[in-house]
Amino acid sequence: MCTTNPKPNPYRSERGLPQVEITSSFWRRYVDLVTEQVLPYQWSVLNGERDVALPPDPGGNPVDEYDTRNHAMRNLRVAAGDMDAPFHGMLFQDSDVYKWLEAVAYALQRRDDPELRRLADEVVDVIARAQRQDGYLDTYFQIKEPERRFRRIQQSHELYVMGHYIEAAVAYWQATGSEKALDVARRMADCIEANFGDGEGMIHGADGHPEIELALARLTEATGEARYAELGRWLLDVRGRDPEFYDEQNRADGWERDFFAVIRDFPRTYYQAAEPVADQRDADGHAVRVGYLCTGLAHIARLTGDASMAASARRLWDSIVRRRMYITGQVGSTHVGESFTYDYDLPNDTMYGETCASVAMSFFARQMLLSEPRGEYGDVLEKELFNGALAGMSLDGTHFYYVNPLEADPAASAGTPDKKHVLTHRAGWFACACCPANLARLITSIDRYIYATCEDGTILADQFIASKAVFPDGVTVDQRGDYPWDGAISWSIANPTDAPVRFGVRVPAWSAKGCELRVDGRRVPADVRDGFAYVDVPAGCEGFTVELDLDMAVRLVRASNRVREDVGKVAVMRGPLVYCAEECDNPGPLWLYSLSAASPTEAGYRFDPDLLGGVGVVTRAAIRAAQDAEDAPLYVDAAERGISELVELKMVPYYAWANRADGQMTVWLNRT
Amino acid sequence: MCTTNPKPNPYRSERGLPQVEITSSFWRRYVDLVTEQVLPYQWSVLNGERDVALPPDPGGNPVDEYDTRNHAMRNLRVAAGDMDAPFHGMLFQDSDVYKWLEAVAYALQRRDDPELRRLADEVVDVIARAQRQDGYLDTYFQIKEPERRFRRIQQSHELYVMGHYIEAAVAYWQATGSEKALDVARRMADCIEANFGDGEGMIHGADGHPEIELALARLTEATGEARYAELGRWLLDVRGRDPEFYDEQNRADGWERDFFAVIRDFPRTYYQAAEPVADQRDADGHAVRVGYLCTGLAHIARLTGDASMAASARRLWDSIVRRRMYITGQVGSTHVGESFTYDYDLPNDTMYGETCASVAMSFFARQMLLSEPRGEYGDVLEKELFNGALAGMSLDGTHFYYVNPLEADPAASAGTPDKKHVLTHRAGWFACACCPANLARLITSIDRYIYATCEDGTILADQFIASKAVFPDGVTVDQRGDYPWDGAISWSIANPTDAPVRFGVRVPAWSAKGCELRVDGRRVPADVRDGFAYVDVPAGCEGFTVELDLDMAVRLVRASNRVREDVGKVAVMRGPLVYCAEECDNPGPLWLYSLSAASPTEAGYRFDPDLLGGVGVVTRAAIRAAQDAEDAPLYVDAAERGISELVELKMVPYYAWANRADGQMTVWLNRT
Repeated sequence: MCTTNPKPNPYRSERGLPQVEITSSFWRRYVDLVTEQVLPYQWSVLNGERDVALPPDPGGNPVDEYDTRNHAMRNLRVAAGDMDAPFHGMLFQDSDVYKWLEAVAYALQRRDDPELRRLADEVVDVIARAQRQDGYLDTYFQIKEPERRFRRIQQSHELYVMGHYIEAAVAYWQATGSEKALDVARRMADCIEANFGDGEGMIHGADGHPEIELALARLTEATGEARYAELGRWLLDVRGRDPEFYDEQNRADGWERDFFAVIRDFPRTYYQAAEPVADQRDADGHAVRVGYLCTGLAHIARLTGDASMAASARRLWDSIVRRRMYITGQVGSTHVGESFTYDYDLPNDTMYGETCASVAMSFFARQMLLSEPRGEYGDVLEKELFNGALAGMSLDGTHFYYVNPLEADPAASAGTPDKKHVLTHRAGWFACACCPANLARLITSIDRYIYATCEDGTILADQFIASKAVFPDGVTVDQRGDYPWDGAISWSIANPTDAPVRFGVRVPAWSAKGCELRVDGRRVPADVRDGFAYVDVPAGCEGFTVELDLDMAVRLVRASNRVREDVGKVAVMRGPLVYCAEECDNPGPLWLYSLSAASPTEAGYRFDPDLLGGVGVVTRAAIRAAQDAEDAPLYVDAAERGISELVELKMVPYYAWANRADGQMTVWLNRT
Repeated sequence: MCTTNPKPNPYRSERGLPQVEITSSFWRRYVDLVTEQVLPYQWSVLNGERDVALPPDPGGNPVDEYDTRNHAMRNLRVAAGDMDAPFHGMLFQDSDVYKWLEAVAYALQRRDDPELRRLADEVVDVIARAQRQDGYLDTYFQIKEPERRFRRIQQSHELYVMGHYIEAAVAYWQATGSEKALDVARRMADCIEANFGDGEGMIHGADGHPEIELALARLTEATGEARYAELGRWLLDVRGRDPEFYDEQNRADGWERDFFAVIRDFPRTYYQAAEPVADQRDADGHAVRVGYLCTGLAHIARLTGDASMAASARRLWDSIVRRRMYITGQVGSTHVGESFTYDYDLPNDTMYGETCASVAMSFFARQMLLSEPRGEYGDVLEKELFNGALAGMSLDGTHFYYVNPLEADPAASAGTPDKKHVLTHRAGWFACACCPANLARLITSIDRYIYATCEDGTILADQFIASKAVFPDGVTVDQRGDYPWDGAISWSIANPTDAPVRFGVRVPAWSAKGCELRVDGRRVPADVRDGFAYVDVPAGCEGFTVELDLDMAVRLVRASNRVREDVGKVAVMRGPLVYCAEECDNPGPLWLYSLSAASPTEAGYRFDPDLLGGVGVVTRAAIRAAQDAEDAPLYVDAAERGISELVELKMVPYYAWANRADGQMTVWLNRT
């Protein structure tokens, strides 16, 4: 066991990551699903080959052609000069293709597929031809308003879109060695470098949607060129420095032009641009923007050693995780601006909880772990992977959530405008289609989230995902287990090097009191420091085993009573999974059920291989109040109460909800 | 005691109302306040003489000149040719003046005031000169778009505005005998009659905002001309008959013209125009529109004997009162479209509960009582008068609520767009200023809500408001008591006629089990039929007394458990008053308190003459959970609970909230 905390590696190429083969039956199913079903499905969508079943327009307007077809690939082909057609879609529609390409890269890295690779190479070719001579690439502006590039960056998403390409290119280059893909990315970054900066005549502001910063960090890791990370650092630093910047740019371009209507409706905090990032105390505004901004902060801080940015990342992490995050990992308490609101404001039924925001939080958690080996980052990452993010996709991979509520009711979604953004069944696609491909790239890159390495060579076993990992120096780790259903996890390690390897195992906070650690079969006290238990793997060994038995008892959890919406309520968890009750298992209304928190031993658990692709089911005694008659008065003497009955409440993992009959769902249940 | 229910008088001029002098200290204070403070204040506002402190714009935009000054009187003077200026304000700004004039009429009916009358006569004179030759009067269209009159009636509010004038004119004529005022009203009605109808070239639709229908009913009662009520009946009948009507009219006028942006955003139900009223099962859409529509339905049905309309009024009454009304009488569950939502959807913190909607429900309840002597109408009216409507004005009469929540939190109003419409302090005025003058006219006409007479001469003592009433036939009723603080009410009746008079006393449903009725000092069993206990007052008697002792114990009330938002909660009532807890009396957060419903005897009550203008205060033992530490984890084991303490919770009447320090308020409290 090591006595001091290892330091993370401040400048480590992503090429140095271990090669990992996923063996987890839970995650292999998802990775296969995305590779075999979701990516081909998305490809056909991106080419406008499908009329996708969009959710009904909240205002009741007819869904027009703009909304039912996605022509992201066509836009690129037009920009490349291959065809002539009008631009079609959202300002940032290009990024749909780039996220798809990034997911394809991860799929190819896992298993080569010449047909898929040929297709991806063609896409890269179109992109390369679409790119302007100076490196600029944004089909909206190239096709529709070439004279206005970089003139409305509060809403233009130009750097955002190019950032997504750079991410895709780095991944594609890593997977295939395509220098062509990487070169397009370099030229984009060069174009940004040529236009943005403190110099005379340059643009003194950052894109209204953060993303480019984290992409530039990745580009530095891939190319070894520090100037890209420095450019990202400048973009983070300039943000909010002049709070008038966007207004002035917009005014110079002409306020009256109806560019993107929302620009006048949201406050500067929506863009994290009301003040310099170093002065921002809380995570405010659009949640996905915050997630990408924070990922960039942590990543750039690590690469450049910028202590202020590291402090900002940590401060915003605390703001989110300690005061503004749902139990399932979702963030974004309001649909208005898809935004954070204020501390402890976590409504369950009017919330947003965008899938992309959970994906962004996964990125942020990963970058924080790479900066500092603390278990809380892995705990949150796990929360996102098994709950908040995963709920964004149906079990068959063809339907998606943009909004992920913790309480849903078809009558409410249909009956009140306040909840019309809450779908009780996933949709086939969205006009604003950021989420499906974002989740796809997270899932296909899941192998990157299992281990982290520190500067001193320490290996952090962060996520419990059965897999075979081979590190560049020949160290191999065979992780086994049936997580999240089973809490027994083992790592069989071979260390062919001539030095011991420190190996840190994350002990989740939820199991800190009840776990057992064994090293080579001998039980050892789990001396947990900042969420990791460390053991030393001797040089030259094979089959060295570390075993962790987590406490998989069903847990009843409550929220801080600063959270008004959860007072008097409990949630059910087991391992990393948050459970929910669905009306198809339990006659509604679900708010008539109450759980006793006093008798946890009554909880039942069993794995049902035939339900929802195989899930662990929790059953628990509950009290169900008789529903008042429809013709009863609305308000009665409080002493008048109907008969309650003892029933068995059945709960399934939250990520698997809404895969059966439409009905109510709730995570939080009344506490008796 | 009578053995059969009396029939209401189907066609009774409002002139036949008793002359009533309010002696109730509670209501006299309010009537004096409105007469002496509110009406002069409003007059200065209507003349643009005041910069009124408007609530901040929800979007954070600067409040411009349009918003800080009201020029309703100037618009009328421009239309009258007295001056030249652009139109200023909302489409329906004229109605601010008309509602003020109506309130002035009631004030003058109570007590003549030559100065006020001179002012009102001048206003009538301006209005008369502003009216076009054919009777049309709407300053927006006259000043701004004369060519478009009656061409966009979905949003134009032209008939709505004229309806408000007609109401004012009837009241002013009743108070002062001004034939000039009434003649303008007749000519308006004639103009509408000339333009709207089934005939060739006429407009086959009704105003998007109901109001004219109830006004025409009042005009028939004032003038005796049945054709006005018949016109109102036609307008009710045509509503929703052709659901495409508005779309077709708007299209004919040119969709592209940005007339009133919301016209495309709201569904037809917003205007109660998706189907004929006879087919509308539920109260849907904009709550004030529904309230005015229903008032018109009940009134026109009574005047014309239209059984279908009477049935519609009753059906919509049930929809509202049984499934869509807050315990305080408010209606309108969402701010989006200021609308009803769906059955049992009664959120307390995101709701709307517009003051005007409670005023409209008062009108509706009154008309229902005049149609059918049932106590539930008076129960709801009382609920509005003492709670929902009255909360719309500060105790000093200079600040107003548009939105009346049942739960408020300054941090929430400031922190989330979902609650930005909820003010925790009343505002000086509004850009859309419908509420202040609406409440003023309700309060100054409170004497009209105390008694109703039936066709057979039965007098219904509907509201417990101490007063001296003189009926046209010489019967006098001296009602005494200190309601709502004291539950002992007495009526001393003189019947100088030569026939007995049947006298019906409303027994509120909340006191049905615990009241005592005495006739001439002798206790009699309260034989309550449909909410009224009837006694016969002999011919020729004087000082015949009826006494009612209501059960004024503090009550704990719960909602039907079909109301998700109120499950596990109780409200505190005493008499007709709903109580609330305010943070200035009880350290917040208020959601940490729980009341036991099992021990009502612990409840304390005392009248505090020095608090909030004199209110009854309820104190009650409550449990207060210790607040979790700010640095505690957001989610913890449900078994971890802090120490709770027994405290005394202090509650004040809901109508008086937000007259002290800013802070949280809640009507519903957790139940242990």
